[in-house]
Amino acid sequence: MTLLIRGGTVVTHEESYRADILCDDGKIQAIGRDLEPPAGCEIIDAGDLYVMPGGIDPHTHMQLPFMGTVASEDFYTGTAAGLAGGTTSIIDFVIPSPGQSLMEAFQTWRGWAEKAAADYAFHVAITWWDDSVREDMGTLVREHGVNSFKHFMAYKNAIMATDDILVQSFSRCLELGAVPTVHAENGELVYHLQQKLLAQGMTGPEAHPLSRPPQVEGEAASRAIRIAGTLGTPIYLVHVSTKDAVDEITYARQHGHPVYGECLAGHLVLDDSVYRDTDWGRAAGHVMSPPFRPKGHQEALWHGLQSGNLQTTATDHCCFCAEQKAMGKEDFTKIPNGTAGIEDRMAVLWEEGVNTGKLSIHDFVALTSTNTAKIFNLFPRKGAVRVGADADLVLWDPTGTRTISAKTHHQNVDFNIFEGKTVRGIPRHTISQGKWVWRDGELHAERGAGRYLERPAYPGVYDVLKRRAEHDAPTAVERE
Amino acid sequence: MTLLIRGGTVVTHEESYRADILCDDGKIQAIGRDLEPPAGCEIIDAGDLYVMPGGIDPHTHMQLPFMGTVASEDFYTGTAAGLAGGTTSIIDFVIPSPGQSLMEAFQTWRGWAEKAAADYAFHVAITWWDDSVREDMGTLVREHGVNSFKHFMAYKNAIMATDDILVQSFSRCLELGAVPTVHAENGELVYHLQQKLLAQGMTGPEAHPLSRPPQVEGEAASRAIRIAGTLGTPIYLVHVSTKDAVDEITYARQHGHPVYGECLAGHLVLDDSVYRDTDWGRAAGHVMSPPFRPKGHQEALWHGLQSGNLQTTATDHCCFCAEQKAMGKEDFTKIPNGTAGIEDRMAVLWEEGVNTGKLSIHDFVALTSTNTAKIFNLFPRKGAVRVGADADLVLWDPTGTRTISAKTHHQNVDFNIFEGKTVRGIPRHTISQGKWVWRDGELHAERGAGRYLERPAYPGVYDVLKRRAEHDAPTAVERE
Amino acid sequence: MTLLIRGGTVVTHEESYRADILCDDGKIQAIGRDLEPPAGCEIIDAGDLYVMPGGIDPHTHMQLPFMGTVASEDFYTGTAAGLAGGTTSIIDFVIPSPGQSLMEAFQTWRGWAEKAAADYAFHVAITWWDDSVREDMGTLVREHGVNSFKHFMAYKNAIMATDDILVQSFSRCLELGAVPTVHAENGELVYHLQQKLLAQGMTGPEAHPLSRPPQVEGEAASRAIRIAGTLGTPIYLVHVSTKDAVDEITYARQHGHPVYGECLAGHLVLDDSVYRDTDWGRAAGHVMSPPFRPKGHQEALWHGLQSGNLQTTATDHCCFCAEQKAMGKEDFTKIPNGTAGIEDRMAVLWEEGVNTGKLSIHDFVALTSTNTAKIFNLFPRKGAVRVGADADLVLWDPTGTRTISAKTHHQNVDFNIFEGKTVRGIPRHTISQGKWVWRDGELHAERGAGRYLERPAYPGVYDVLKRRAEHDAPTAVERE
Amino acid sequence: MTLLIRGGTVVTHEESYRADILCDDGKIQAIGRDLEPPAGCEIIDAGDLYVMPGGIDPHTHMQLPFMGTVASEDFYTGTAAGLAGGTTSIIDFVIPSPGQSLMEAFQTWRGWAEKAAADYAFHVAITWWDDSVREDMGTLVREHGVNSFKHFMAYKNAIMATDDILVQSFSRCLELGAVPTVHAENGELVYHLQQKLLAQGMTGPEAHPLSRPPQVEGEAASRAIRIAGTLGTPIYLVHVSTKDAVDEITYARQHGHPVYGECLAGHLVLDDSVYRDTDWGRAAGHVMSPPFRPKGHQEALWHGLQSGNLQTTATDHCCFCAEQKAMGKEDFTKIPNGTAGIEDRMAVLWEEGVNTGKLSIHDFVALTSTNTAKIFNLFPRKGAVRVGADADLVLWDPTGTRTISAKTHHQNVDFNIFEGKTVRGIPRHTISQGKWVWRDGELHAERGAGRYLERPAYPGVYDVLKRRAEHDAPTAVERE
Repeated sequence: MTLLIRGGTVVTHEESYRADILCDDGKIQAIGRDLEPPAGCEIIDAGDLYVMPGGIDPHTHMQLPFMGTVASEDFYTGTAAGLAGGTTSIIDFVIPSPGQSLMEAFQTWRGWAEKAAADYAFHVAITWWDDSVREDMGTLVREHGVNSFKHFMAYKNAIMATDDILVQSFSRCLELGAVPTVHAENGELVYHLQQKLLAQGMTGPEAHPLSRPPQVEGEAASRAIRIAGTLGTPIYLVHVSTKDAVDEITYARQHGHPVYGECLAGHLVLDDSVYRDTDWGRAAGHVMSPPFRPKGHQEALWHGLQSGNLQTTATDHCCFCAEQKAMGKEDFTKIPNGTAGIEDRMAVLWEEGVNTGKLSIHDFVALTSTNTAKIFNLFPRKGAVRVGADADLVLWDPTGTRTISAKTHHQNVDFNIFEGKTVRGIPRHTISQGKWVWRDGELHAERGAGRYLERPAYPGVYDVLKRRAEHDAPTAVERE
Repeated sequence: MTLLIRGGTVVTHEESYRADILCDDGKIQAIGRDLEPPAGCEIIDAGDLYVMPGGIDPHTHMQLPFMGTVASEDFYTGTAAGLAGGTTSIIDFVIPSPGQSLMEAFQTWRGWAEKAAADYAFHVAITWWDDSVREDMGTLVREHGVNSFKHFMAYKNAIMATDDILVQSFSRCLELGAVPTVHAENGELVYHLQQKLLAQGMTGPEAHPLSRPPQVEGEAASRAIRIAGTLGTPIYLVHVSTKDAVDEITYARQHGHPVYGECLAGHLVLDDSVYRDTDWGRAAGHVMSPPFRPKGHQEALWHGLQSGNLQTTATDHCCFCAEQKAMGKEDFTKIPNGTAGIEDRMAVLWEEGVNTGKLSIHDFVALTSTNTAKIFNLFPRKGAVRVGADADLVLWDPTGTRTISAKTHHQNVDFNIFEGKTVRGIPRHTISQGKWVWRDGELHAERGAGRYLERPAYPGVYDVLKRRAEHDAPTAVERE
Repeated sequence: MTLLIRGGTVVTHEESYRADILCDDGKIQAIGRDLEPPAGCEIIDAGDLYVMPGGIDPHTHMQLPFMGTVASEDFYTGTAAGLAGGTTSIIDFVIPSPGQSLMEAFQTWRGWAEKAAADYAFHVAITWWDDSVREDMGTLVREHGVNSFKHFMAYKNAIMATDDILVQSFSRCLELGAVPTVHAENGELVYHLQQKLLAQGMTGPEAHPLSRPPQVEGEAASRAIRIAGTLGTPIYLVHVSTKDAVDEITYARQHGHPVYGECLAGHLVLDDSVYRDTDWGRAAGHVMSPPFRPKGHQEALWHGLQSGNLQTTATDHCCFCAEQKAMGKEDFTKIPNGTAGIEDRMAVLWEEGVNTGKLSIHDFVALTSTNTAKIFNLFPRKGAVRVGADADLVLWDPTGTRTISAKTHHQNVDFNIFEGKTVRGIPRHTISQGKWVWRDGELHAERGAGRYLERPAYPGVYDVLKRRAEHDAPTAVERE
Repeated sequence: MTLLIRGGTVVTHEESYRADILCDDGKIQAIGRDLEPPAGCEIIDAGDLYVMPGGIDPHTHMQLPFMGTVASEDFYTGTAAGLAGGTTSIIDFVIPSPGQSLMEAFQTWRGWAEKAAADYAFHVAITWWDDSVREDMGTLVREHGVNSFKHFMAYKNAIMATDDILVQSFSRCLELGAVPTVHAENGELVYHLQQKLLAQGMTGPEAHPLSRPPQVEGEAASRAIRIAGTLGTPIYLVHVSTKDAVDEITYARQHGHPVYGECLAGHLVLDDSVYRDTDWGRAAGHVMSPPFRPKGHQEALWHGLQSGNLQTTATDHCCFCAEQKAMGKEDFTKIPNGTAGIEDRMAVLWEEGVNTGKLSIHDFVALTSTNTAKIFNLFPRKGAVRVGADADLVLWDPTGTRTISAKTHHQNVDFNIFEGKTVRGIPRHTISQGKWVWRDGELHAERGAGRYLERPAYPGVYDVLKRRAEHDAPTAVERE
């Protein structure tokens, strides 16, 4: 299919200019003024629209088996909802059970993902350690296009990675040119506080944030960053939700250490008062980890995005319906953790970030796609508007409005944490692999159209880390 | 002249790739693999070289009349030396005397600069205030391509801008879409300390740094930043030399304020021990303001560059020979302030930044050209390797070495603050306006070849500032 | 009068213990268990009470001529209200008009203060500069027991001290062993913003905080601190109201510089929403400078008190009644600036600080008296419970409650910024100079009983500053 | 024995004044001008001397069995050397082997300590966990005057306390009113780096600091602080040696969390160049953990002491002679860790802190005794000059000098890290329990004269923590 996007304003992470864009064969073929449409070419009028790289959501959990149930959104419905929201790629997670072969888990997830409607990649979680894990990490990097590994510092007695695993796995990442990532919460403290709260009779969702206070995240952020810093690896923190963690990232970056932080749309706009909703269902509907935070933390997250100390936005899209949430009716620790958002992330960030003057439109692009593409070595195939790049584009209407609701969203879940919020600035059209999949309200997602994205090892940050390691190599003292 | 750069590795502020580059008519005409050389085309073999945007030095003072003498380097010799060092553009300063018409001063400097061998632009200094100054700022921005104004917070009883001037001028910049810049030192304190030191019999160059301690810079940095922040303008700090000022910039940026900081090559590698040299000439040769600093400050500057809190590198190139320096033999406050560096900036930054693993090669490009071009709205004409951009390029040899010396440099001054330093990583060739002006040690600079660069108002940062101002506009309370 | 306080718990800035206290001749004569009451001795049963040093309010403005009117509270009524609130000493301000002799102004204020019911001292403001000011500073320190001088960095075109005055005056303080203090707001910015807001038609009290945003305080704090730091003097910032200023103080203190910060009870509990009250009188009743701040700043102030970065609490007690406030009905810049609080400071700090677990009872004593006494060299005559100290004591009832209201307070003003607030923890009895002046709700203040407090030069901080200056004295380099 | 100290200047942590002091029965009996000496009273002329509380060293390891050997200094020789240096009390450590009963270990150490010449107390280490440990902690606090427990976060495969132990033990401390303390280094990282360095052939002492880089301490400091902060306990960090850890402490304190930091005299003045000494013995003589650090860290430690973010000074006195150090000749990880210092701490702090103008004489007292006494609930029995306090005093001669050397020191070890350093300011006399044990160079220490010091639970900090916990207690939401 050939497609000409005519008359729009191209917006990248660093500039904007008027140009037409010609897409063919899934790629951008030409960018320029007054391009001639080839015969049979579909034409989109982008007259008042911004033409930006399609969003990349670096943090989703489609059809995740978790806490005794399975996320309601599968790879097809989830990626389709993403397209409706302007997001054209995701990075999901392979999460082996402790003891399970990484390769086996990887193949399982690959199978599940075949029905995806948009491109996808996988971080692979390190939930245990032995020589086979070490070997499989090598295989995944060298043969399967995985360049990032995830570590849960929370979830004691389940998938928690203790310090010895972190040290082993981060060291292995260094050998392979991969990026370690972490869910930063101190699992020992969470466990301790959960038991204590339950013992005090605190069984409702309002206990959820109390069991995971901000310091619990700050601690783990500091630990992961410093282990990485000591070993000489980069480090990427998923879903940074607190001033505490932003401060840790900032501190490290100010000292020259390559630390990356990801921020969820939800944490930018919601606070922990949701857990004291007198409607149990609404309170439970917001249960995710890390939880929504006391109000002051939002300002720190925005400042993190503005200053470049946080580089990416994501959703941790992980959907559980009301009946699933009800599993924790008597015990908040049994409420499946997760909330939706892949469809809303970009619009929420525009409304609260761009419309308020916090972020420029270039920051918006950097934060929704380009930075993720750079960090995880998908750039400039993804995250760029360039000849030769994948034709994944979103045509943004800064004047369009939409009121978010579970009743109208495309996500396969009966709850929306942004329910009732009206945004100005919406994805009018989405192009995925050169195909016009979201057409002003009509979704034309195709089951199975998504492709697995191989991500090469040694993203750019390794150049400087290698040179640094050589320069700082230890030398012995000559003695008699 | 048509020129083909063949076989090199293009390095920009965000990526590297192998490609040939074809230059014609002063511009880059094509970038690609295996480009065919047009007939009559000159060819440069860039096989083992990095092809990067030519350097931009945003801070020079060619033939400046200052402290009773005139800088020894003129616009021709200075820009020529720049070309030998890989720098293809400068932004110099028009400095009206208090009371002098801005337009008159501007025309004077424009005349002096006509002999330049490379492209140049001008910041214009605001050294006094009345309605004519306000008017002339408008004329300069709207009709003469000036988009930045400089304010000296030091030099009491001469060109110092007091707070009332800063407030007026920054406000005017906001109206015009221009960028205020400051030399951040508290002039009252400097004056007080100079008098006190002289009264104590401290007349030698060792008193120079004592008269301008780090807090004096930190204070002025904080003041300029907060005045700008209150008024809603961006702010650019020239020659940031202290941890104190880096901390101020960092603090502001962490709070979402667009503050830029420039760092001189000299401050990155030299410390204040030079002023206690027992050879008066060597000590005086290092006298510039702000002075070289106690050692610990260098680490803060490097961290600033690494973390993105400092964005540009410059030289404050302002040359005075030994006999000029001797004017201050009996009184350190009479030593003409200034040191050279335009030829050495890039090589010193490579040696100390890239070779040590502090900076990536992309950081290097960003810090020597791209960021300056973006901040002062010359991007992507300058600071980019793109079709359509000016063909200002440096072909960098990361294995070449050179020992810096006043005996061999091209700068028109008899002293070099980097004397004896050996660098690995040198500009092998320089292309200016598509012409091959530095050819492996041979300088082919052409007097008068440089062009005045018009810089449009409203650089990118103003987009977000405008939106922010609208969003935060004050509203009155309805009362009976 | 002899007085025995029996059975209480003595609480100082560092410890608590059960003891009786015998007062005679205005001083504490004995502290111990089971003291025998001398014949004719009055006895107070302090069984469940804390016996603490009487409060010192280091910042009041009794009967101040200001903005075209005179504060409604005079030295008698004000100090009497203080006694009802547990405060037994004040440090007020002598504020010469620009051009007025310091000595003359000092004598005027001394005259006004003779009717005070409790002890008092004076800071003297430096509002202009010439040799006579310099001389008078010496006279005041050497002959009149003044050891602190105040500088208003705001109030352009009135009493604002520009940088040249700050440098001169701080240097003079150093020679004399006095403590410079500042009202830290950038007067140029305030003036500019006031004009701009008025031009925009923003004439109501809601414009007041917009004309003095937090950065305006942060800037001035930074400037005063760094001028002091450069010169080697201590510095005391009055009414610190923003995170910005707390951060500056903290930064300086972390670098070894003796900086002190004072915090007003009002800034700890009120926010800037008061200025958007639809009742003009209520909004105007809160107009003071610096204004009440956006909510987040309160946390920073509490953290400042907890961490020791802020050392004192005060009120800036300066009362204007509704008809006086009405002078600014058409123009917020004409609303007399000032609010009351001397009677409420201690109870508000207890309620919000001690009852919440933010402060210990020892912190409370330090913050309400001891630290002020130490900084301004009144310790241990004031701020201590010791044999030989002045018998200025408050007997605190941690279980007593009171609802604050202008209807019931003893302050001579028709408005109370804490109106309706109920506090638990109140001054049950107050002893001033050994006299039982506040007896469980009955005020026995005596007009003229207050004494002028001489404060010797060279408070403790000067010991270390002197040694530091000697150690760091500049030395010349020997050259041929 | 009755003793009159005549004519000196009493210096406490907050003031100085001239007074005589009468000691009897081990206690201070009177303080005042011109005290009459009782019959038979010994008199010390303190005319030009400062009379200060005797030093308390909160961190010593006398006769510690460690790394296959036993520290050469026993409780007698070590406390005697302390007396010669002005230190009159120590807090040593009981370190049970993993699995060993706490009570058994406690009794063993109590036995060893009976020969001490000065008063002593014990921190007890928690090196493993089960219910008996929990029980024994209670017994120690309630029946044996222990109010602090130590946790080694380093020493993997030996005495390292992992996060689960920290959480359990800190929680237990909270129940008991005890203070958890930590040796903050990440043991996993140290272990990993040691193995890596040995594998690289780095076997000499120069590898020691490389195996324990500053981030390793910063990480553990952050972790301990945040675990304590989450649980609501105070926390005390022993031997803080890095800017990284000071920054963590400062951050926590700025947020209202009661965190204490201890600093060793050695870390204040030595840097890591000592490990590259070409003499193996000298290099190994400096091996202790945490190691001496790159130079910049010293400034951070001084700033920590100046700003109150570090509160105590200690030595980690743990002596190994040359032949013991030689155990690690082929493998730096086998060099017994430890250095001496109990005799030199106070003089080094005076020389480098007071003489340079970094610290006041009051800071000196606070940092050498008073703060330790307060934190560990020995105040005002120790750390104070008051009637009723123990007569432990040092008479300091600010003009006396001494050149430190292993040849002349009283410590039972053949090496001194301060070898050759000349200090101005020395302990001229030391009084312990009212006895004149150090008389201008003559040591009259008495074996067994030292007493075990019981330290009550619930030091002052618990008052505010308890109130805070009550105020913040969780409450359930009422739902249908």
